[in-house]
Amino acid sequence: MLTEHEIEIRVRYPECDPGGFLHHSRVFVYFEMGRTELHRASGDNYRRWEDGGLYAVVVQAECRYLKPARYDDLLRLRTIVHRVTSVKIEHEYLLYRDQELLCRGRVVLALVDREGRIQPIPEEVHRGHS
Amino acid sequence: MLTEHEIEIRVRYPECDPGGFLHHSRVFVYFEMGRTELHRASGDNYRRWEDGGLYAVVVQAECRYLKPARYDDLLRLRTIVHRVTSVKIEHEYLLYRDQELLCRGRVVLALVDREGRIQPIPEEVHRGHS
Amino acid sequence: MLTEHEIEIRVRYPECDPGGFLHHSRVFVYFEMGRTELHRASGDNYRRWEDGGLYAVVVQAECRYLKPARYDDLLRLRTIVHRVTSVKIEHEYLLYRDQELLCRGRVVLALVDREGRIQPIPEEVHRGHS
Amino acid sequence: MLTEHEIEIRVRYPECDPGGFLHHSRVFVYFEMGRTELHRASGDNYRRWEDGGLYAVVVQAECRYLKPARYDDLLRLRTIVHRVTSVKIEHEYLLYRDQELLCRGRVVLALVDREGRIQPIPEEVHRGHS
Repeated sequence: MLTEHEIEIRVRYPECDPGGFLHHSRVFVYFEMGRTELHRASGDNYRRWEDGGLYAVVVQAECRYLKPARYDDLLRLRTIVHRVTSVKIEHEYLLYRDQELLCRGRVVLALVDREGRIQPIPEEVHRGHS
Repeated sequence: MLTEHEIEIRVRYPECDPGGFLHHSRVFVYFEMGRTELHRASGDNYRRWEDGGLYAVVVQAECRYLKPARYDDLLRLRTIVHRVTSVKIEHEYLLYRDQELLCRGRVVLALVDREGRIQPIPEEVHRGHS
Repeated sequence: MLTEHEIEIRVRYPECDPGGFLHHSRVFVYFEMGRTELHRASGDNYRRWEDGGLYAVVVQAECRYLKPARYDDLLRLRTIVHRVTSVKIEHEYLLYRDQELLCRGRVVLALVDREGRIQPIPEEVHRGHS
Repeated sequence: MLTEHEIEIRVRYPECDPGGFLHHSRVFVYFEMGRTELHRASGDNYRRWEDGGLYAVVVQAECRYLKPARYDDLLRLRTIVHRVTSVKIEHEYLLYRDQELLCRGRVVLALVDREGRIQPIPEEVHRGHS
């Protein structure tokens, strides 16, 4: 499994607020896209996990906002697998416009089954990250 | 079952776009809240329908926008059961700020089971509307 | 100016609802992306219009939903300039998954200045569409 | 100015994801509603700040998720002014369903003028919090 991946995101009009800037809540949607695509680029697929009864739940999320993004900006999101334990995966996220770092985030995930019981992090996630 | 109901909605900051106005896509979320609350005011509950395996799907939606709404406006949404057939429910929606009509919408619903098969509209919906 | 354009859209997780499907309100956000990219592919840019004090406002929007889209589906949106009058632009939208038509929409726009006064549709929009 | 305030929030259908739960990004929209209403309950109004050229920007946001919220849940959000410095306001947020704490957040704001220059926190915000 890959431990880093990068995607491009075009800021959509209704993702921005009357202040004219990308709303701070939206970066967490971008971060989720980042880990979905890291997953896909590694040859796996989150939708298949869900179809198989394995759900990712966010247990902690945070972000520091350094510069605002505007409507129609073309951004670059770097997703990094930062830490993997027996029951948690932690990614770090760096959102850029050109070379300028706009924000830096961190999201901690756990995996649960359909009944909400904590599941161990799959072997292949560990393998990529050691 | 009631055939008309009214709710108040406060426009949220990230529901508005860089133009400063409520984004046109959001009124369909408001309309859905309107029918949820009409449902609840009638003594029923849409979540219970879903828990029982009955899902509402939107087959057609439209809206005419007469005046814009702004962030923090307190709006009034009137939801009206407009037409009920054996397989469809059609609501009309009127969104006001004070006495001013901001937009007028119409959404047509069908009901499906977990496999996506069309289900007949429940008796109690017809009873209210004849 | 182009009169047709096509883009790909990957359905995001929080764009889908507890029923598991793309929420019906979201297609209007997709349609807006479609016209933004048609605009860009024509060598113009909507953000530049706004910076110059020209705002597009939606006066009417509608959609017919034929089949549902699911999380992670890769969709194809075809945007077509359907009609241009002295004060309105009307686009048609066709959303596909592979060859399957999922929904068909129509949105009518007017242009206003910063004070909300209706502005004539620019010459170059007419030129492409005659 | 008040230093604590509580509001009720009904979870909307499209705020929940295919997992059936309130999407983690949405709590930051709720938190913003919490501080808007604390503001209003204190006799002031954030929209008036913006009309006067004073904008709140989020510089840091975080949340710990303890239990999930579901569609149609009626939640209770407690907003607390946690710390005020010369250039920052920090709120804490506690989101409950009945007596059960679902999540706990923290958002740090700065104020800027139309050109994005940092502005001092107004006197009345300090007065309430000493």
